[in-house]
Amino acid sequence: MPGVTLTYAHLNRAIMRTGQEMLFVLGPGHGAAALNAATWLEGTYSMRHPEVRQDLAGMRELFRQFSFPGGVPSHASPHLPGSIHEGGELGYSLAHATGAAFDNPNLLVACTIGDGEAETAALSASWHGSLFLDRVTDGSVLPILHLNGYKIASPTLLARMSREELDAMLSAQGWEPMYVEGADAAEVHECFADVLDAAMERIRGIRDDAECGLGPRDPCRPMIVLATPKGWTGPMLVDGERVEGTFRSHQVPLPEVRENPEHLAQLEDWLRSYRPEELFDDAGRPVDRIARLHPEHLRMSANRATHGHDSVDLRLPSPADHSVGFAAPGTELAEATRVLGGYLRDALVENPRNLLFFSPDEHTSNRLDAVLEVTGRRWRGRRIAGDDRLSPDGRVLEVLSEHLCQGWLEGYLLTGRHGVFSTYEAFAHIVDSMVVQHAKWLHMAAEYPWREPIPSLNYLITSHVWRKDHNGASHQDPGFIDHVLSKRPEVSRVYLPPDANCLLHVFDHCLRSRGRVNVVVAGKQPALQYLDDDAARVHCERGLSAWRWAGSDTDRPAEVVLACAGDVPTQETLAAAMLLRELVPDLAVRVVNVVDLARLFPPDRHPHGIGDDEYRDIFTDAPVIFAFHGYPWLIHRIAYRRPGHDAMHVHGFTDNGTTTTPFSMCAMNGIDRFTLAAAALTEVPRVRDRLERFTADLTARREAAEAYARRYGIDTPEIIDWRWGGGDSR
Amino acid sequence: MPGVTLTYAHLNRAIMRTGQEMLFVLGPGHGAAALNAATWLEGTYSMRHPEVRQDLAGMRELFRQFSFPGGVPSHASPHLPGSIHEGGELGYSLAHATGAAFDNPNLLVACTIGDGEAETAALSASWHGSLFLDRVTDGSVLPILHLNGYKIASPTLLARMSREELDAMLSAQGWEPMYVEGADAAEVHECFADVLDAAMERIRGIRDDAECGLGPRDPCRPMIVLATPKGWTGPMLVDGERVEGTFRSHQVPLPEVRENPEHLAQLEDWLRSYRPEELFDDAGRPVDRIARLHPEHLRMSANRATHGHDSVDLRLPSPADHSVGFAAPGTELAEATRVLGGYLRDALVENPRNLLFFSPDEHTSNRLDAVLEVTGRRWRGRRIAGDDRLSPDGRVLEVLSEHLCQGWLEGYLLTGRHGVFSTYEAFAHIVDSMVVQHAKWLHMAAEYPWREPIPSLNYLITSHVWRKDHNGASHQDPGFIDHVLSKRPEVSRVYLPPDANCLLHVFDHCLRSRGRVNVVVAGKQPALQYLDDDAARVHCERGLSAWRWAGSDTDRPAEVVLACAGDVPTQETLAAAMLLRELVPDLAVRVVNVVDLARLFPPDRHPHGIGDDEYRDIFTDAPVIFAFHGYPWLIHRIAYRRPGHDAMHVHGFTDNGTTTTPFSMCAMNGIDRFTLAAAALTEVPRVRDRLERFTADLTARREAAEAYARRYGIDTPEIIDWRWGGGDSR
Repeated sequence: MPGVTLTYAHLNRAIMRTGQEMLFVLGPGHGAAALNAATWLEGTYSMRHPEVRQDLAGMRELFRQFSFPGGVPSHASPHLPGSIHEGGELGYSLAHATGAAFDNPNLLVACTIGDGEAETAALSASWHGSLFLDRVTDGSVLPILHLNGYKIASPTLLARMSREELDAMLSAQGWEPMYVEGADAAEVHECFADVLDAAMERIRGIRDDAECGLGPRDPCRPMIVLATPKGWTGPMLVDGERVEGTFRSHQVPLPEVRENPEHLAQLEDWLRSYRPEELFDDAGRPVDRIARLHPEHLRMSANRATHGHDSVDLRLPSPADHSVGFAAPGTELAEATRVLGGYLRDALVENPRNLLFFSPDEHTSNRLDAVLEVTGRRWRGRRIAGDDRLSPDGRVLEVLSEHLCQGWLEGYLLTGRHGVFSTYEAFAHIVDSMVVQHAKWLHMAAEYPWREPIPSLNYLITSHVWRKDHNGASHQDPGFIDHVLSKRPEVSRVYLPPDANCLLHVFDHCLRSRGRVNVVVAGKQPALQYLDDDAARVHCERGLSAWRWAGSDTDRPAEVVLACAGDVPTQETLAAAMLLRELVPDLAVRVVNVVDLARLFPPDRHPHGIGDDEYRDIFTDAPVIFAFHGYPWLIHRIAYRRPGHDAMHVHGFTDNGTTTTPFSMCAMNGIDRFTLAAAALTEVPRVRDRLERFTADLTARREAAEAYARRYGIDTPEIIDWRWGGGDSR
Repeated sequence: MPGVTLTYAHLNRAIMRTGQEMLFVLGPGHGAAALNAATWLEGTYSMRHPEVRQDLAGMRELFRQFSFPGGVPSHASPHLPGSIHEGGELGYSLAHATGAAFDNPNLLVACTIGDGEAETAALSASWHGSLFLDRVTDGSVLPILHLNGYKIASPTLLARMSREELDAMLSAQGWEPMYVEGADAAEVHECFADVLDAAMERIRGIRDDAECGLGPRDPCRPMIVLATPKGWTGPMLVDGERVEGTFRSHQVPLPEVRENPEHLAQLEDWLRSYRPEELFDDAGRPVDRIARLHPEHLRMSANRATHGHDSVDLRLPSPADHSVGFAAPGTELAEATRVLGGYLRDALVENPRNLLFFSPDEHTSNRLDAVLEVTGRRWRGRRIAGDDRLSPDGRVLEVLSEHLCQGWLEGYLLTGRHGVFSTYEAFAHIVDSMVVQHAKWLHMAAEYPWREPIPSLNYLITSHVWRKDHNGASHQDPGFIDHVLSKRPEVSRVYLPPDANCLLHVFDHCLRSRGRVNVVVAGKQPALQYLDDDAARVHCERGLSAWRWAGSDTDRPAEVVLACAGDVPTQETLAAAMLLRELVPDLAVRVVNVVDLARLFPPDRHPHGIGDDEYRDIFTDAPVIFAFHGYPWLIHRIAYRRPGHDAMHVHGFTDNGTTTTPFSMCAMNGIDRFTLAAAALTEVPRVRDRLERFTADLTARREAAEAYARRYGIDTPEIIDWRWGGGDSR
């Protein structure tokens, strides 16, 4: 990683010369060695890891812990002071850097990108970020594309492009490449210094112009292309084969230092070639000449924003001010995400420089339009008549790349600000691997007390599996919540608010939280409302509760429990409860709704888990028919150790998807009201003798509804106009 | 989708003029209407969907089924004859087109890319594909980038680039854009015809040059940029607002035709503007003039390769010829993937134009080197000294983008050929969403008898969670198998071969299979070998079996079962069995190994599931300690309805990952031999009284091993040199 060491040293020189605040993002794989060393030389590594002192013993520990059991990984990770980037999986450095620059007008984010990483899909798209940075209200990003020529074994695509091709590709996407190339250290140093000074002057010029209202709104931004040999300054030949400048210098150029005395001797020669005796004093401390190369203030490794310091909580409106009113539960329709839009609009007004919204061009489709009453969609490019609410500093960032939405938001959060990513449920899988890495970052970062918890990563997952009526199977996949719940329980949260008022309270909670990945699943279609503001607040705080007003077990023990999680399953469960009242008025049915899925975990598996006693209070000893938004096995996985689990029957999405009506989707997957009611009857021996008649009736009604859908393309009037008529007192 | 209709018509004209074999990939979202119509006009739609005849009633049905319950989705999907592309999730059209072109020298793949799709990460990276296509042995790809200016609500980035910028960006990545731009239909037609003819001539020229050994090895390839207004030829104004050329024409330009008589009138005017009376006869059949616009032969919608026809099975070597020999189980080391490499090399020799290997630059890292004895890494760019085994027509495609590896392989499979994608386990999540879409394609395609099953999508998942010793937590995630098993059981398969010989048999099976997503998880590190070729064959055919040679239950019923799935869990389980022999010689232990995870499903949940009787034969009634490669809940999810499930205790990865030794990883997650042995003892009442002594002993030994790892950076000699010594007869 000689290129990273070189870069870091020159950035430090520039900081000292100009007083520019900087932050460093390290993209290349296995590059942490260089950054461990650089931050150790600055003293910040020892400050954050007191066991790694700035002396001989500390230096030994620094070397030893690298990629060593109980030590630190070989890529950027939370152990590195000043780092905001989990670099284990390649591709996200430039997106993180861009996210960090939003709303940080005084910041310059230097971002080293490996030429291996540059081949990834996410990085390929990330060059577009230049177009989204405001010249005045945002900071700047300085990409440093490091062409060392090879990945593990193959050459890299970008390193073998001609200079003209690379120039063309980058400048077309808003960057002005400036080149530092060579293998002679002294020449490269001089060149790097000149180029970096010029780049920073250009960045300053763009800002100065913008402040005076001059210059193009979307100027080309400077970037550096650094072309040095892979394994530069390392062993030239090993066992007679060329190493420097080839793929053989990847990771470990001398593989047999333990067994092969020649390799050991080469290693010693190599390390001595840096003349350590001139760099360190006898105690192993950097000599003054070296120590003076680092800024006293503004050290990149001590940038407060990178450790979550100075992160300001949001000032949030009251959910009560946005709540949907109704005369009785289950009688009025509202679009949950549209209601949330009003709340988010007011939140934005209160937090104009601290909150951003990201979406793959679905902000309006997801019915968060109200936000656009007080801001625009960020757009700095050419505009034409017919464009809708574009604005150069809009707070809604839309780009048809889930990777960019996620990567930008992560960078924004990792530097202490707040945000929301709204996206279609099925396509949330596009960022599966990114959320793994972010969750791992959150979990690992919590081990370092000098890192303050950062604002949570908040997903609004909508256009969900039950209401992709027109798109069909490809748009129907509720598995993102399974994926997130496979991550550490300290970090992962999944909420399924049943209606708009619950969505408000859940989102209020999520926006106030820190250090979490919050997945909120909510529909955007008109749906019945059940809880007023007060009831919603209490229900969401509890995370799950029996809806006594919906059940018929008020004066006697429940004979069967209808449980539900998710807006559509809640609707079908209530309809099933109403059917049961109609058909078997003497049956004691309890309705339970779950908002916070993690409540179902045993407490030793998840911090939100409730005890078995509380669980039994809610679910009773009666059999449970559970209508679930997602794959049924997620509930089994969570609750398999619970009392009565053998009598819990989960109905959920079983990958039976197609282009069809909302009710038909439910029927295909067995979460429709008729199937749920029949399932409940089957579980109660006392009424089982009446089953045949009712089951036949319920089946006939389900089949008629499905036939109607296929014939007319819509659900039956009785299903569309269905209202809860089971009682309105709580 | 007037742009798609235009494109299709011109491609047909070109086919008729030149006799060029073509295939069409439709990228833009909600674009299926155009392709439904085009293939209906050609007659192939009616051929494949006899209920949609080429007459008035058929036309009505064609319109009605579009995005309608029980009908077809609004994007390209398996119902479309000639299509190989599931277009529900945007981003993969160009990668699919590239994959289809490999080894199809006579084929031209025309690929329409929406400017929304062009913003996705996967598509951004896909332009690199040009560099991987051989001029002679591969076919050609003709991208048609359709700039209609808007996504759902925002403008698109590429449409607002200047012509110079777009030119620069595309040509830098190996494409020569040719422009068709305008709003006047007649002019655009003429221009499209000229440009398409020129593009095809250029494609022919590149091939002719190559066949004569002329021209650059990596020429710029022609592509078309088609810029027409969004909603072109549709209503210009609706309710006084401009629609044509703006985002308002997305999907449904006239939203209220049912309620609003003005909208209805506008709809009628619009549709009549195409003068249907001149296009169709009284019976609703296309008039001759229209029918003659389509080629008689070589219809894109009847391309046999797109329906899996003419797909040739692989000729495969015998696993026996590659098997690892040993004197007794558990005494010899081998690297499973290296052994597989030899088998794959021989497979490649037998199938030189029908089999490709894809990897994000990890082919050698994953120890499949042997393949490179008979081919090279595909590389058509500039070459320099130090490059390792590059070749312009190499059969190993390495690019550091999992998206491209997956997308190219999908395109190759969807046109009937075979391939393997080898990748690091943790980073397989990068393609989570792509495998969802491919699995959905396979499942939906199976509904159409005119689609033959295509070769399976085979993953070799290696560098797995238990052996990312140096990289740590970011590289440790076994959740890809959970994800794949959430897809339809008809399609999804997960195999965990315990050793090299089993890996050979599993892979042999996978390469012979069709219509599946096969995930094979296997380590690349030296590991003990257990089954000879014959035993491996039988074991893999069964999918799971009791390893009688490893157990102590030969002459009496098992008191406890040690089950395992995965190579490292198998090693720890056998070590635990040996410990139990040593400590409690009178205990009857059975060892069960599971290769095919789906065998554990009940038969009504997965076609591979075994019956409860067979399950009980194997697992007995004794308690089960199950050491599992992945997250423990996956086993619970699969087996929760099995007899004895309450007494099954699964030990697996619980997201306790870090940079540490192999044994330490096992210990941190409770799948190490000592923990397993102690857990087994706990379950057997007869020996429970001896538990305290043994448990204390086992705990002490585990802790000592962990301390050693932290001190010396390696596992203890006793763990490293561990061999199975429990018996060698079967």
